[in-house]
Amino acid sequence: MGEERHLREELAERMAETPFYAWIGFSLVSAAEGEVEVAMQVEPRHLNLQGLAHGGIIATLADTAAGLAVRTELGPGRRHVTAQLNVDYLAPARAGRIVARGRTVKIGTTVAFAEAEVTDERGRVLARTSSVHSVMRER
Amino acid sequence: MGEERHLREELAERMAETPFYAWIGFSLVSAAEGEVEVAMQVEPRHLNLQGLAHGGIIATLADTAAGLAVRTELGPGRRHVTAQLNVDYLAPARAGRIVARGRTVKIGTTVAFAEAEVTDERGRVLARTSSVHSVMRER
Amino acid sequence: MGEERHLREELAERMAETPFYAWIGFSLVSAAEGEVEVAMQVEPRHLNLQGLAHGGIIATLADTAAGLAVRTELGPGRRHVTAQLNVDYLAPARAGRIVARGRTVKIGTTVAFAEAEVTDERGRVLARTSSVHSVMRER
Amino acid sequence: MGEERHLREELAERMAETPFYAWIGFSLVSAAEGEVEVAMQVEPRHLNLQGLAHGGIIATLADTAAGLAVRTELGPGRRHVTAQLNVDYLAPARAGRIVARGRTVKIGTTVAFAEAEVTDERGRVLARTSSVHSVMRER
Repeated sequence: MGEERHLREELAERMAETPFYAWIGFSLVSAAEGEVEVAMQVEPRHLNLQGLAHGGIIATLADTAAGLAVRTELGPGRRHVTAQLNVDYLAPARAGRIVARGRTVKIGTTVAFAEAEVTDERGRVLARTSSVHSVMRER
Repeated sequence: MGEERHLREELAERMAETPFYAWIGFSLVSAAEGEVEVAMQVEPRHLNLQGLAHGGIIATLADTAAGLAVRTELGPGRRHVTAQLNVDYLAPARAGRIVARGRTVKIGTTVAFAEAEVTDERGRVLARTSSVHSVMRER
Repeated sequence: MGEERHLREELAERMAETPFYAWIGFSLVSAAEGEVEVAMQVEPRHLNLQGLAHGGIIATLADTAAGLAVRTELGPGRRHVTAQLNVDYLAPARAGRIVARGRTVKIGTTVAFAEAEVTDERGRVLARTSSVHSVMRER
Repeated sequence: MGEERHLREELAERMAETPFYAWIGFSLVSAAEGEVEVAMQVEPRHLNLQGLAHGGIIATLADTAAGLAVRTELGPGRRHVTAQLNVDYLAPARAGRIVARGRTVKIGTTVAFAEAEVTDERGRVLARTSSVHSVMRER
């Protein structure tokens, strides 16, 4: 419990320091070892030509949650970058709050696997992702 | 030539009408039948915790170029949504201008395939994508 | 219960009529609506240069289970083909029995999504797949 | 030229020593640094329920060509395994000879990227793949 609060606070702090997350409108919901939730409010600026949340934004939310989940399981002195991302778009997203839950699938020495699921307020699954991350020493 | 100018103008107009593209900072570079280029300037707000362009933004740029390329080959009264997106991240992107060139691979009656390549100003390939699009009648 | 037995028998019969499954060594384990299990015995002929089950065989097993799962949810007069397959290889497979459990994720009018997980006798997950299937009328 | 012949002979020898390739019916067509072609004759035993070459076999052919292409660029003492494979199925394959041309996209220290294209005798593209390979020291 204290551990999870610690993880959550550390990630929330890092996100707050990163202008990207404020600009795009992502916020941390929860963080436990191997599982991180990130949320966003879909606003008019996120909508594509057809009035639906742009698929790239959904991919970005999912990649953020999955990447942070990987981060919770890397020891000190190690970092990761996404090498490959696969997204299945199951349902269109409209205005409202959506949440990505990222989970680690396997953490290896040089390669890690993760997944994420993006759902809307009614619990409908909008997208599912799987990703491969390259793990390396901190520069 | 006149045809390409027409295509380019029509897409540029649609992008200009969509607040998403202004907000995220994408602009149309070129549009021919089956091939569309979209560019962005990587700014500090696009950078992740590690000072690199967030992979999700690169995926969004590539998906936009690939999706618009599909759109150039759909007849009137048909629309498409991305069903699946695969992204390979080959090199990290830093500040500067990056361009995604999207191309159609196959346009079927209900399913279309496309690809995109994202390069930086020096011609370095940052990412490659392949995508599956569901094609349907305009609502 | 009777329904599941019926499904299982129908699929087992179709597999038995298809020389491919006998040749490659796949057998049906179970079939319920939206979930099908297919097994194989990894033999020396399935091993690659490194003495591990060739990844393509594992992809084939997973694609078979996922595709049959989709089939259990298609009404009469409809058929499907795999449009896209994504495989994450989590652990190497050696000799022994392995099982792929395929499940449908979403069945749409023209596009369906499925997933599969391949495990060995000790329950270790060897691979996970996600796939997009194009759905159409029976010819 | 001598170099390519050497590469080709070395790979052909390794394939000949591996019962998998004889059993499945793959043969080496050409091998240069970063590019390898592998062919197969689609026989009745490779056909699925619908009379088309099973997608898994096409994935296996493509993965073999891409993996061998990676191998041509790894120095001595290093080996690789496929971590992730993405396959887009563009057209159905019927009986006849099909060829997969694998190419490296990027070879990193611990991660490599490759692609493959599978075509039939008339030059029609049946499938395209992209793959991520984990690179490590030889055991």
